[in-house]
This record gives sequence, structure tokens and C-alpha cells, in this order.
Amino acid sequence: MGRRTSAQIQYRADQIKQSVLRKLKRLGERVLSDLESGRFPEIHLPARTTKNIVYDPELRQYVLGRKRVERTTKNVRHLRPFAQLLWVASFAKQLLTTGKTSTLRDTYYVAIGEGIDFEDQKESDDTIVELETLIDSPREDFNIFPEERASIYGDLVIEYTVPGFRGKRVDLSSHPDGYAIGPALTTAEFVRCGAEMLFVIEKGAVFSRFVEEGADKKYKALLLHTAGQSPRNARKLIRRLHEELNLPVYVFTDADPYGVHIASVLIHGSALSAHIKEINVPDAVWAGVWASDITRYKLPSMKLTDQDIKRLSELEQDPRYQADPWRRELKEFWRIKRKAELEAFSRYGLDFIVKEFLPERLAELQKR
Amino acid sequence: MGRRTSAQIQYRADQIKQSVLRKLKRLGERVLSDLESGRFPEIHLPARTTKNIVYDPELRQYVLGRKRVERTTKNVRHLRPFAQLLWVASFAKQLLTTGKTSTLRDTYYVAIGEGIDFEDQKESDDTIVELETLIDSPREDFNIFPEERASIYGDLVIEYTVPGFRGKRVDLSSHPDGYAIGPALTTAEFVRCGAEMLFVIEKGAVFSRFVEEGADKKYKALLLHTAGQSPRNARKLIRRLHEELNLPVYVFTDADPYGVHIASVLIHGSALSAHIKEINVPDAVWAGVWASDITRYKLPSMKLTDQDIKRLSELEQDPRYQADPWRRELKEFWRIKRKAELEAFSRYGLDFIVKEFLPERLAELQKR
Repeated sequence: MGRRTSAQIQYRADQIKQSVLRKLKRLGERVLSDLESGRFPEIHLPARTTKNIVYDPELRQYVLGRKRVERTTKNVRHLRPFAQLLWVASFAKQLLTTGKTSTLRDTYYVAIGEGIDFEDQKESDDTIVELETLIDSPREDFNIFPEERASIYGDLVIEYTVPGFRGKRVDLSSHPDGYAIGPALTTAEFVRCGAEMLFVIEKGAVFSRFVEEGADKKYKALLLHTAGQSPRNARKLIRRLHEELNLPVYVFTDADPYGVHIASVLIHGSALSAHIKEINVPDAVWAGVWASDITRYKLPSMKLTDQDIKRLSELEQDPRYQADPWRRELKEFWRIKRKAELEAFSRYGLDFIVKEFLPERLAELQKR
Repeated sequence: MGRRTSAQIQYRADQIKQSVLRKLKRLGERVLSDLESGRFPEIHLPARTTKNIVYDPELRQYVLGRKRVERTTKNVRHLRPFAQLLWVASFAKQLLTTGKTSTLRDTYYVAIGEGIDFEDQKESDDTIVELETLIDSPREDFNIFPEERASIYGDLVIEYTVPGFRGKRVDLSSHPDGYAIGPALTTAEFVRCGAEMLFVIEKGAVFSRFVEEGADKKYKALLLHTAGQSPRNARKLIRRLHEELNLPVYVFTDADPYGVHIASVLIHGSALSAHIKEINVPDAVWAGVWASDITRYKLPSMKLTDQDIKRLSELEQDPRYQADPWRRELKEFWRIKRKAELEAFSRYGLDFIVKEFLPERLAELQKR
């Protein structure tokens, strides 16, 4: 990408904000107009029941099916959830207009304080998900962010859009321990990028290893550390890096059923987020550690636990795992009944993973 | 502090490195000279048994007592741990001379690869702790770092000492989501600091809240997010910020037995780290949320679970909790049998914690 000046940048975050505010306004107007003309307000939204979650092979992610549910104020049992949903919508508007951010938990406490009687945080969380479904926008777009932080490092200059930092820039190659990915980074604009690919890494130790061995320079790669299952806003950032900067994405996880799932959620999305589009990256590539790498690289490994075996059986039923490399690797897990960690490559020395494994794997994947 | 130029900086990290290398060399020379003069090499080191861990009220931390153990190669059962310890010492030297870092887990895998027969990672971890005890240096000083990352934000310019970044500087107020605290930040020099205190915060959501509400500017404060129990290198960084920059430290945790313990470990150290000095900050102040705040601020709260109650009983026996505010607050937990989260202040609006609670609490603590 060429270097962009501030004046040329239409902040994407501002467009999203305006779009969400418009949707919230339409929702309010509909309810108000119903009330003013003496009708019982009602809304319809896609059902989030298990039966209505379908895998869309074209979009390559889970989506909601056609089943819809009605919330009508005619029905006295609907009144409470209806009012709660409207409160969340008004809180979302307040967050967007003041430029503040919140979390699921914070939102619950604000609700308590304002006398909204959620039974527990789960009920409040569910209502937030309902608003996401209704207006078809992820909660990060109305400033409700995860508490967990992934981090990123590499040759990318960003420009902030959040209050207090608007227009300021930072070079993500200046701090080798990584920049935490919070609200400011998630909503930033990409100004200049020298990287040509993105490595997404489950483990902090391996992220540090990649930095120390200069994997970012050797491969012109951004490095992103998910710290386990990736927080949603980091998944969205990965998607943006792929779409806006055309960066191919390679995902590195442990060779165990949880690592496989972490990679799969990044690539195919999760059933829980079926109501949200575009926070997965169908073109991202799971680069290892594969079950087959355990034998191939003679990695130190451990026996699968009963829980691992149970998880493995679940994954086998899942439509996301019916194609290779997933199917092939699940089979291999069954065959060897063992698992290995990303750090296991260190048996050949700390630099092996970057100097030997990485070029081999990338050559293999890019050949296909 | 005044601004320092690079030429004026004697890198503290280099002095530590030289000191550890000297200690490792002395260890090797002793073993070698024993071997050369036909003696069985042996070492003596402080015992890390529960009975030898004592609370030192003067140092205000746990320390090891006078009991020592012998490792002698005369005894065939000692041979294996003796050899393992020497291997870890040689690996430590290798890390320091190459400038690479490792983690407990990575070190285990390197050992496996080099044919050192640790039964599992625990045995390898224990041997690393033994080396810490023997040479009286925390493992971070020989480049074995935790995988977990705390993060920091505020008016502080640091200068890196790690290879590849040596002499480069970064301003920690440039990225509002926080700078991850890994090997590079832990070993950096402080060059210029505009802050006058340090707020240490358990929760990511509250860290973000403090940034958004400008607590760093209002109080000229650095903000450090521990993400739960603080990783050891972040504890060391907190100590350095206190000692080298004279920053008073205020710790904010949830009002539950785990939050109390997180604060206490930062302040008094932990029994597990009794063999390590100077990663705690005895002068740091636990600033809340206190059990008594639940009633005082009418915070939304939850019943203590059976596990909480069990933990509370354990804390009561602990010498670190015999003085106020600890004793007072433990009593209050027993009385109300409830707990609350830092985010609970949001019941009065998102800005309450910074605009109302923080000035009240600081005024109260500074009056004492």
C-alpha cells in the first residue's frame, strides 16, 4: 500500500459508527411510531437456536438459518426482554455518542445501576447478543469490547481514530514485546505496511521466539499473538489485515484438539458467533503444528487425555472438519493418540522453529 | 528524573548479566577444580521446604531460613539432579551469551533434545528454581521469562537493552491499549518519566476505563495491567518503577479472596518465591476494592462460594494478613460473606470509578 496522508483517510470506524447509529435510530423510530399509533411494538429477529445454526459452505462459516422469532409487547411475557433489549440499544447509542467503550461485564453493572433488572450477567450478555443479531453488527461496532488482549508486532503504521488519540500514529515495529490489541488498535486505520503476510500465533513464548529470531524481517511478516483462543476484536483485526492489506494469513497452534479448534474458529468462525459475519478469515491457512508433524519431526509428545479424546469426537462430527487438512489431521490424532506443543520444536534448539520448520512449512503451503 | 542521554546510561541489564555470568563461572570452576583434584563435587544450597520458608517482618517478605541441603556426587542418588542442575546452569550461560530468551517450557524441550532426562516439565522447572536459589538470582536475570504478559501505559520513555533494539527508545504514552511487558520492556532503562505514581490494576476492563477517563493525566500516573495474578517479570518492573523513579504504587483488585491475594503477593511476595528477593514492593498500597467498600459504596455483590470461604480461612492463618488493612478487611469478608468486582463501580456510570472513587480513596490513603 502507498503511504496515505491523514487528509486522505476516511475513517472506517466513523462510517461504522454512523451506520450503527442509523440502525439504532430506525429501531427506536419503529417502536415510537407503533406506540404513537396505538399499536403494540414488536420486533422480529433471526432465531439463535442450535437448530437454526447452519454451516454455509459458500461463505465458509456458520450462519443463522431462516427461522425467526417474534418479540411482541402484546405478550406480557415478552415485555421484560423487550424492555431490556431497548435499554441495551440506548446504552449502545450512548457509548457511540460519548466515544466511551465498555465490556459485557461493565454493561451488566451499568444496567443494574439504572434499575434494569437482569437476573445475572448471563441475561445481560444474551441481550447484547440479541442486539447484535437484530441490527446485524458485532458489539465491538457499538463499543462493547472483550476484556482479553491479543497483541501484535511488525512493520505496520497505524493511525488512531479514538478520542484523545485521533490522527496520532504509531509504528507497530517499535516495541518487540507487542502492542496490546484493545479498542484503540482495533478501530485504527492502516497507514503504511511493509509486511507481506501475517503469522497468527497461539503461544506467547513462540511469539517471542519469532520476534527474537527475526521472523518478521525474514518473511516480511506481521506477528499476532492470540494468547489462546483469540478474542473477537483480534479476529476482526486479522480479517481487516487480510482484506484491506491483502496479507495471506498463517495460523500456528499447538497440535492438540484445542489448538485445532483455535485455528478453525479463526478460519471458519464459531457456532456461537453464527449471527455475526466477517470476523473469520476463510482464506487463512492452518500452518501447524499438525498431528502428522509429531511423527514427521519426532516431536516430544504427550498422550491424549480422556478430555482430549472426547473433544476429538466432537470435532469429527463438525462440518468444518470434513475437508483436508482437518480431516486428515483428525485421523492422524486418532492413529497416534498423542499431542504436542508449538514449543516442542525447541528440542532441536531455540531457533529451529523459525530457521527450519517455518521455511519448510511455508514452501509446502505455497506450492499447493 | 532528568532526561538522560544514551551515553550516560550504564545499562542495568548489562550489569546483571555480567554478575550472573560471574556466578555461573564460579559454580563451574568449583566443580571443575573438585574434579581435577580428585574430589567428589558437591554444592550446598538453602532448603526450599515449607518448614524453611519464614516470613521476615523486617524485609516484609517471605524468605528462606538457615536450613541448607547438600548435593554431593558421592551419593549416587544425587548424581542425576546434580547433572541436571549443571545443564541448566550451562543453558543459562548460553542464553546470556547469545542474548536469546526462553521460558520454563521451552527450556524443558531444549533439555529433552539434548538428552537430559527430565521426567516431566515439573522436574525441569524445579531444577531452574534450584539454580535461582543457588546463585541467588531470579530466572529472568538469566533470560528465562514467563509466557504471560502484563501491559503498561503512561508518561514514561524507555530505552531498550535487548539485541536488535539496543539504544532505541519508545514513549509508553503512544499506545493507549498498552505495551505488552515481555523481555524487552522488563530489561529496558527508564529515560524520562513525567508520572508521579503507579496504578497497578488487576482487570483489563478497568485498565481501559482508567485510560479512557484520563486517570493517567489527572493523577500523573502510569497504568499497569496485571491480567490477574501478576507475572513475575511485571512484579520486578513494578519494583523498579518504585525504586528507580520513586513512584508510590497503588494496587487495585477485585474485592474477593483472590483479589486480596493478588495485591498481597505484589506487596509481600509469595511463599513460592521466598528464595527470590526484591520482586515484591513492601511499600505498595492496596487501594481497593475492599470488603468494606461493598457496603460503603453499595456495590452489586455476590455471595462468597465455598471455595472463597476456604481460601479466606487459609489467608487468615497467613502472617501477611495479621496487620490492617488486611486483617480488618478479612474480618469484613467474614461478616458480610459477599464479594464484588472492580467493575461494580459502573453501577454509578462508567466514569464513577475514576471521577469519584479514585480521588476519595487516594485522599484517604495519602492522609495516613
